[in-house]
Amino acid sequence: MPGRLDQATVDLLGVLAYGELTAFERLAADARLAPTVADKIALGRMAAAEYDHFARLHDHLLAEGVDPEEAMRPFVDAIDGFHEGTPASGWLEGLIKAYVGDGLATDFYREVAAFVTDAATRGLVLEVLADTGQASFAVARVRGAIEADPAVGGRLALWARRLVGEALIQAQRVALEREALTELLVGGSGDLAGIARLLGRLTDAHTARMQALGLQA
Amino acid sequence: MPGRLDQATVDLLGVLAYGELTAFERLAADARLAPTVADKIALGRMAAAEYDHFARLHDHLLAEGVDPEEAMRPFVDAIDGFHEGTPASGWLEGLIKAYVGDGLATDFYREVAAFVTDAATRGLVLEVLADTGQASFAVARVRGAIEADPAVGGRLALWARRLVGEALIQAQRVALEREALTELLVGGSGDLAGIARLLGRLTDAHTARMQALGLQA
Repeated sequence: MPGRLDQATVDLLGVLAYGELTAFERLAADARLAPTVADKIALGRMAAAEYDHFARLHDHLLAEGVDPEEAMRPFVDAIDGFHEGTPASGWLEGLIKAYVGDGLATDFYREVAAFVTDAATRGLVLEVLADTGQASFAVARVRGAIEADPAVGGRLALWARRLVGEALIQAQRVALEREALTELLVGGSGDLAGIARLLGRLTDAHTARMQALGLQA
Repeated sequence: MPGRLDQATVDLLGVLAYGELTAFERLAADARLAPTVADKIALGRMAAAEYDHFARLHDHLLAEGVDPEEAMRPFVDAIDGFHEGTPASGWLEGLIKAYVGDGLATDFYREVAAFVTDAATRGLVLEVLADTGQASFAVARVRGAIEADPAVGGRLALWARRLVGEALIQAQRVALEREALTELLVGGSGDLAGIARLLGRLTDAHTARMQALGLQA
């Protein structure tokens, strides 16, 4: 059957699905760095939830007659590149990556989802973007570590800046290559002023997350 | 409240729960080594299923008034020791570990479960020991790799022997330290001849798995 979803919607589902699959792998790998069994359990629960999100996106693509691997393929290099460029060296860096990095990505995808015309897809995307508990968990653990050793804060703030820089590099790469997705975003925002407001909202939310961690943005 | 479960049953649930939690971490980490996105998805699905098993054991312990972390603690060193002693160097070694190593552990736990008097616990243990699809997946992938390059078979057979050796070392360590669990096994088997028959069954099943892979036991 001819696909019911337009290219931009398939792109959004594809990038999200591969993002969730790698988020799952990363959270599960970070669980091995967890200092206590309780931390291991908490990260494991989030990782399993990410896999569930991935599976729902995967099945939605299949149900719409789209090959999920085909849909993910254009984004594999950018997302793998992001993870290879930002390997967490230790438990706290992994938590920052899960909270700050995934937080930024989630905000961005939620903005894009608002422009998707297919209601079933839009609903599913908003559902899988729901927080799996990693925000409050990361905030509590990182704040605790900084209180115990304030010098940790400076190092982690640098790490968060590096994450954002690497994410912007990969996002630009995707924007150049995936015209349909870029047009959805530009068309949905209306004009350059709309894009500027969107970037402003992303920046504000990022600053709020850094503040919640007790880090300078 | 005083625990309703006896020490041997709590021990069995504890060792199983920590085993599932680390199996989840390991499968998820091996997913990063997967050569294709389809393999990544398949391993991710199994890993998420292992986490679900862990969560059910964890919740069962809680419902019985037992602290899951306390129940797991006696087995952390032995299970961590097993994984540290057998790091998979590559995708195929990870698959063999998931199939041969987990297969041996599963057979053993299933034998022990038969001696557990609490019916709800026994039922749950048998459910979480159900295969999550890793057997047929591992067999197909390993056989394919050996057909493509027969020399791989010798190296993987050595690896499987090393896994069994390391598992026996850690099992003896647990047997020495956890008297209740050892007594359950010995008492349930009846006598030394019963234990010998149990070991015979484990060995036969192990040999069958090696043959399924096309490897010499």
